Parts: sequence; C-alpha cells; structure tokens
Amino acid sequence: MRFSLRPQDDAFYQFFSNAGKNLVRGMEILSELAVAGADTQSVSERLVEVEHDNDQLTHDLYNKINSTFVTPLDREDMYALGSQLDDVMDHIEAAGNLVYLYGLSELPAPPREMIDLFDVLNAQARITADALPRLKGMHNLKEYWIEINRLENDGDRAYRMLLVRLFSGEYDALTVLKMKEVADELEAACDAFEHVANTIETISVKES
Amino acid sequence: MRFSLRPQDDAFYQFFSNAGKNLVRGMEILSELAVAGADTQSVSERLVEVEHDNDQLTHDLYNKINSTFVTPLDREDMYALGSQLDDVMDHIEAAGNLVYLYGLSELPAPPREMIDLFDVLNAQARITADALPRLKGMHNLKEYWIEINRLENDGDRAYRMLLVRLFSGEYDALTVLKMKEVADELEAACDAFEHVANTIETISVKES
Amino acid sequence: MRFSLRPQDDAFYQFFSNAGKNLVRGMEILSELAVAGADTQSVSERLVEVEHDNDQLTHDLYNKINSTFVTPLDREDMYALGSQLDDVMDHIEAAGNLVYLYGLSELPAPPREMIDLFDVLNAQARITADALPRLKGMHNLKEYWIEINRLENDGDRAYRMLLVRLFSGEYDALTVLKMKEVADELEAACDAFEHVANTIETISVKES
Repeated sequence: MRFSLRPQDDAFYQFFSNAGKNLVRGMEILSELAVAGADTQSVSERLVEVEHDNDQLTHDLYNKINSTFVTPLDREDMYALGSQLDDVMDHIEAAGNLVYLYGLSELPAPPREMIDLFDVLNAQARITADALPRLKGMHNLKEYWIEINRLENDGDRAYRMLLVRLFSGEYDALTVLKMKEVADELEAACDAFEHVANTIETISVKES
Repeated sequence: MRFSLRPQDDAFYQFFSNAGKNLVRGMEILSELAVAGADTQSVSERLVEVEHDNDQLTHDLYNKINSTFVTPLDREDMYALGSQLDDVMDHIEAAGNLVYLYGLSELPAPPREMIDLFDVLNAQARITADALPRLKGMHNLKEYWIEINRLENDGDRAYRMLLVRLFSGEYDALTVLKMKEVADELEAACDAFEHVANTIETISVKES
Repeated sequence: MRFSLRPQDDAFYQFFSNAGKNLVRGMEILSELAVAGADTQSVSERLVEVEHDNDQLTHDLYNKINSTFVTPLDREDMYALGSQLDDVMDHIEAAGNLVYLYGLSELPAPPREMIDLFDVLNAQARITADALPRLKGMHNLKEYWIEINRLENDGDRAYRMLLVRLFSGEYDALTVLKMKEVADELEAACDAFEHVANTIETISVKES
C-alpha cells in the first residue's frame, strides 16, 4: 500500500473517471456510423452534447485545481491529463461532425479499414475508462499503458491501410478528401489516447 | 502596482511590442488577397520582407536574452514567446506565398469562409499587438486571453466550414488541394496566436 | 577540456552513435527510390528491418537509462534524444513503405523536387551521424546545429516547390494525394532532424 502526505481528495479522481466515461459514451455514438444508413445528423448532435459536457467537466477540474491548496497529484500533471482527455473527445466529436457536414452518409458504408479504426478507438476508450479510477492507489496501471501502446500501433496500421484503400481508385477525388479528413481525426484520437497514457505513466512513476 | 527585484529592462518589452506590430502589418498585407484581382506576387514579396524583419528581431531578442544576466521575465518564457510570435508570422507569410506560387490568383475571389478566417486573424493580430506592450506591468491581460481563445474557436469553425465549401464540388480537385494548403496555414496561424496567449498567461500567472 | 563528476559510461554514447548510423543506412536505402524502376518492395522491407533494429536500440537505451543510478547526461535529455532519433527513422521508414503500398513505382521517376528532399535528408543524416559520437566531450557541435538548421530551411523550400510541382496539373488527383503523403513524411523527417539538433544544443549548453 502506498502512503502519502497529500490529502486524497476524491473529487479529482471523480473528474478523471467521469471524463473516461464520456469517452466510452462518445465512441459508442460514433460507432453508429459503422453501418450504412446511419443518422449522421443525430450522431453529430449527440457527440456535440457529450463534448460540451466534457468541456464543462474540464473547466470544473481546472477551477478545482486552482482553488485547492494541496492537491493529491502534481498540479501540472492533473492539468495535462484533463487537457489530454479533452483532446481525445474533441477528435471524436470532430470525426462525427465532419461525416455529417460533408454529407458522407450517401456512401453505402465506411470501408472496413475505417471500422478497424473504430474498433481500436472503442478498445482504447474502454481500457482508459477502466484505468482512470485506478489512478487513486496506482493499481495495475502498467498493463494499461502497454495495451494502449499496442492499440496505438494497431491504429497506425489501420490508418495506413485506410489511406491505401481511399487512394485505390474506388472513390472520386472529393470523396477521398472528405474521408481522409475523417480518417485524420480518428488517427489523432488514437494518438491522443496514447498521450493520456503517457501522462498516467509519468504520474505513476512519480508517485511510486 | 507590482514590485519586482528584477530590472525592468525596456528593450525586452520593446522586442515583443515590435513583433506584435509586425503581425498586424503582415495581416494587413495578407488581407489584400480578400478581393479579386489582387497582386499576389506583390503581396507575397512584401510578406517575405516583414517575415525577414521579424526573423532579425527574434534573433536580436535571443542574443539579448543570452547576454543579459538578470532578465525581467524568465528566460525560457521570453524565448518561448519570441519563438511563438515568429511562428505566427511564418504561417501568415506561408499562406501569402502559397497563393502566389500555386497561381490561385486566377480564381475570382477567395470563398467567404476564407475571408472569415482573415477576419479572425486580423482581430487576433490587433488584440495581440495591443496586449504585448501591457506585458510590462501585467495590466489587463485576462480579457486578452479570453478574447484570443474565443477568436480561436471562431477560427476553428470558419476553417471547418471552409473545408465543407472546398469539398462541395464547386472547385476541381487540384484547386481544392491548393486552397486547402492555404487554409491549413491560416488555421495554423490561428492556433499559433493561441500559443502566444497561453505563454502570456503562464508569464502573467508566475509574475502575479 | 571538460571535467565532470558524472561517470562517462560509454554505453550511452554508443547507443546514440549506433542510432546515427542507422539513419545513414535508412537514407541510403530510401535513396534507391530516386531512380525509375526501383524495387519498392525490397526498399520497404529493408527499411522495416532497419527501423526494427532502431526500435530495439531505443528500447535498450531506455532500459539502460532506467537502470543506471548516475547517468552521464540528464536522464530526460537522453530520453528525448533517443525518442527523437527514433522519430526520424519512423518517418524515413514510412516514406519508403508508402511508396510501396501506394504502388507509386509505376511512375517513371520521382520529381526532381522530391530528389532535392532526399539530398537534404542524406546530408542531415550524415552530419547527425558525424556529430553524435562528439556528444562525448561536446566537441565542435555548433557547426552541426547551424548546418542542420540551414538544411532544414533547404528542405522547407524543396517541400514547398514539390507541392507546386504536384499541383501543377502534371499528375492525376489520386497520384497527387499519394505523392503528397510521401512528401509529408520526408518533410517530417527533415523537421525531426532539427528536433534532434535542438536537443543536442540543449545538452551542450547545459554541459558547457
């Protein structure tokens, strides 16, 4: 067991846990786009709502950090973690919004390689949401980093193969450009999950 | 009133004020592209001049930081601020240069959404140039950060709608690609103004 | 001559020297693509091998940093340098892999501006590999930074002119998109060499 002179204010851990839940929720909504005929407007609107919830949560976290004299973790680490969790959500929301704005719903269904990216992001969201409550106590976080990094490699490979597919001649140039913008947001979300994991690793090394 | 044991060497503040003026000047020149028939070569050449002026200024700032024993602000913060102001200028210059190099002057006029981005950047340049002289004394900087962040959100929205416009089918694929490169530089300039504001916030929090 | 209370454990310097050699080897392989009819599959496969070697080397470096009580250079600087050398290799490998995956070998030969980028990268790789063994003793590193920065400027210019060429109407839209992805990796490699140089500058300033 770890002892600490710092107060273990549960409110901070609660913020991170809630942000993790929002990411799972966001990816559930985005994944509705994996089938043909999805209601892209509804997906986009619900993602905007989850993203606004998360903005508020991040804002409340920053206020709590600024108004607390002794924080359970280093101030700058909590700030970084909040900001990076928010970045993941921004990319998930952007991906859903672009599918709607570009009118990509006219396609039969996304290419398999894009669904591979959805799968990677869903897995990253779930294990991140599982790991965040374990920040309090720093339990079993190593498996989480290793798995996030493994998934990020899967995501890189899926992204690369998605571009090969997009450039194959199957789609017209404007559709390629639109889908590439969506793919770029998905890949950025994948990277952003890795940044979250790196910060959790930094915190864990400091506290251990 | 703020007291400090550090010398208030005006030369440092003067560098930042001059960099701010260069950004206003750069955006004035770039904004000439908002109307059809603009002389893109002349815009590009004058932007290169302003950018070179700014490089020299940044170089002089670094030399002054390195040769001064006690600086009025933390060395690394002044270094970051100089570098970030220079980044904004680089993106403004790049946008103007690409319009010229790609021969985009053959278009009737930029789409409205690109002019929205010019408007955001002009506003960011003006309030940044207004704020920089206030670094000495740290007066009223909070309104500046809030406004820069609000403008950056406007810029994100304008950029997103600009891509929707570019991908609408109104332009051929190569023109879309060229205009997207210009749009990316404008959006990067918008973000770079936010990085400047974040550094000024950091300085201000430390010194207060 | 520089004196230090830190142990001069040669193993660390050896890691960096080996990473430098890998970059020269990687660029030699990638440069085979400069002529028409290159065996893109073989280039890609050999680059993957060099990249895997380098991953292992970076991994070993991190383990050595973590298991050493007093390191000859600051831990975080060695970590950053290892990570940035690995980034360069990743971009070189990605460029070669994309040429193969996209089937770009059907083109007669890369445009001259892309070969200019190869030349810049070859020069950067060589002077980086020359400089890394000089980390031990911090000899003559200033000329190296200046030259890397000069080359990075050349690379920026070559990249900009490469896009002008790609957008000139000479290639169809999908080929443009494919070649732009390759160009982006080359430009990222160019920037990544500059990040390496910046870290070496930081180390050198601290240790001098």
